[in-house]
Amino acid sequence: MNKICELFGIEYPVVQGGMAWCSGWRLVSAVSEAGGLGLLSAGSMTPDLLREQIRKAQTATRKPFGVNIPLMNPNSENYINICLEEGVKIIFTSAGNPKKWTATLKERGVKVAHVVASSRFAAKCEEAGVDAVVAEGFEAGGHNGKEELTTMCLIPAVARILDHTPLIAAGGIATGEAWLAAEALGADGVQIGTAFAVTQESSAHDEFKRLCVSLDEQSTMLSLKQLSPTRLVKNKFYDDVVDAERRGVTNEEMLEMIGFGRARRGMLEGDLENGELEIGQVVAQITDIPTVSELMRRLVEAHDAAKAKLSLT
Amino acid sequence: MNKICELFGIEYPVVQGGMAWCSGWRLVSAVSEAGGLGLLSAGSMTPDLLREQIRKAQTATRKPFGVNIPLMNPNSENYINICLEEGVKIIFTSAGNPKKWTATLKERGVKVAHVVASSRFAAKCEEAGVDAVVAEGFEAGGHNGKEELTTMCLIPAVARILDHTPLIAAGGIATGEAWLAAEALGADGVQIGTAFAVTQESSAHDEFKRLCVSLDEQSTMLSLKQLSPTRLVKNKFYDDVVDAERRGVTNEEMLEMIGFGRARRGMLEGDLENGELEIGQVVAQITDIPTVSELMRRLVEAHDAAKAKLSLT
Repeated sequence: MNKICELFGIEYPVVQGGMAWCSGWRLVSAVSEAGGLGLLSAGSMTPDLLREQIRKAQTATRKPFGVNIPLMNPNSENYINICLEEGVKIIFTSAGNPKKWTATLKERGVKVAHVVASSRFAAKCEEAGVDAVVAEGFEAGGHNGKEELTTMCLIPAVARILDHTPLIAAGGIATGEAWLAAEALGADGVQIGTAFAVTQESSAHDEFKRLCVSLDEQSTMLSLKQLSPTRLVKNKFYDDVVDAERRGVTNEEMLEMIGFGRARRGMLEGDLENGELEIGQVVAQITDIPTVSELMRRLVEAHDAAKAKLSLT
Repeated sequence: MNKICELFGIEYPVVQGGMAWCSGWRLVSAVSEAGGLGLLSAGSMTPDLLREQIRKAQTATRKPFGVNIPLMNPNSENYINICLEEGVKIIFTSAGNPKKWTATLKERGVKVAHVVASSRFAAKCEEAGVDAVVAEGFEAGGHNGKEELTTMCLIPAVARILDHTPLIAAGGIATGEAWLAAEALGADGVQIGTAFAVTQESSAHDEFKRLCVSLDEQSTMLSLKQLSPTRLVKNKFYDDVVDAERRGVTNEEMLEMIGFGRARRGMLEGDLENGELEIGQVVAQITDIPTVSELMRRLVEAHDAAKAKLSLT
């Protein structure tokens, strides 16, 4: 049996990445109902909202789902306590030290995965005793690593250093063919963000989803490298960021220019010009806004077809 | 039969990328003898040297080999005429318009491939009638596209728009597993640079090869983005480039700072500090300096083993 399916008790080794303003209970429960693993994104929720969303997801599905918690978030401890109180059994941590919470969570019976962008941090995850490592490449949307390692280079390197911990590949994966490629590179499963952000059940604004369908290969760029590398859609906000970088602003000035709630404004409220729009480079391959069950059907069919084709050549 | 093998008359669909200062007749003939396709790199040769190298390669192997010609090079027409005079039957063009030479070359019985970094340019290649398209991702060493598309995102996109033209994937491929991944993404074959640069037969300086063996995931970065994006090893020369960029120099000032012969100084003469060192991100996976035949054996074995493993899961 596939290691990721066994670990989380799911049908397909397909994790829906926790994405700010996209991954509410509707998306999460739909993914889990379709046989994947849905992840609520705590990072864009108040603690109270997270609790409410966990309860709604629990009502909507009896299948396993989890919560993604960025450890650099000032509410991270709060989020973790809420997950424990509400009986969440799967937590994906990111943006921080995997040693901080892994042991505590595992003692409480929680399965823990941690997201990394380099082999060095993958080794730290294994030392920390995580149940799975998510390795995410440069092509991924939103927050990203400083090393700029692509999925093609990162996955084999992480697979080589992990001794026994299952590996989930992320970044640039929106099709069954790319899922199969990730397996060829040594991954046990995949985490998919962009394709799930652009589904009917995603909580992103409809205008943002429609924009995503229209984007092409030139539409995103890794940006904000000095502050914290983030892959953004090239809109007016992006242009303002690039201009500010060219002027050589300090991090404080950049933070002031960005202000508060920019990502919410873009992805949840649909301000496509002045909002911060985070999406992966693979958005160029997205051509419609399917339901989650339709997307999962396509993923599984294309994966199996690509595998059959490969074995014939 | 594999389309790339059929097109070029080779045993394995593995092309050795034409690399400045690495791809002389020894490397090229060794790759072709081992069942792949060797490519001389015209870009770092005078026209006379190219002619000499073609003749030496013809003496060293009866198997097919080719020449890579960067079309932006002021000698490009000269290179093409020499190839025609010397009976070269395979030409890979890059960095320019595929419409410029493809028809002329094909009339003369030459097989033509063109290197691109985006779907848009891949479509132009097909219009121009090339025999194969090489699509090269952001992780590749040396000169690179402005769109920063990774191999994982680029290959499926190019595979989708090409109607009948065979596709060769490049960037981040140094192992049989990555070769298989590229096939899963829709490629018919692969072009491998970095791994061939670090072989016994590569004409790069031994000090550069030894440096490559020691490099890790943090050792390269896409640089010189304003002038012409190039993936470089982070050495003193790289630091100087980054400093100059921070100061906001013009392209003219940058060119003056770089001066003439920097890549030769680094890769051929072994000045690891002040030379320009071009290598792919996948260099982190290179752990020794094998012969070409040993490398090809590893590639084929790992590819077949990964395929067998994948078909069992």
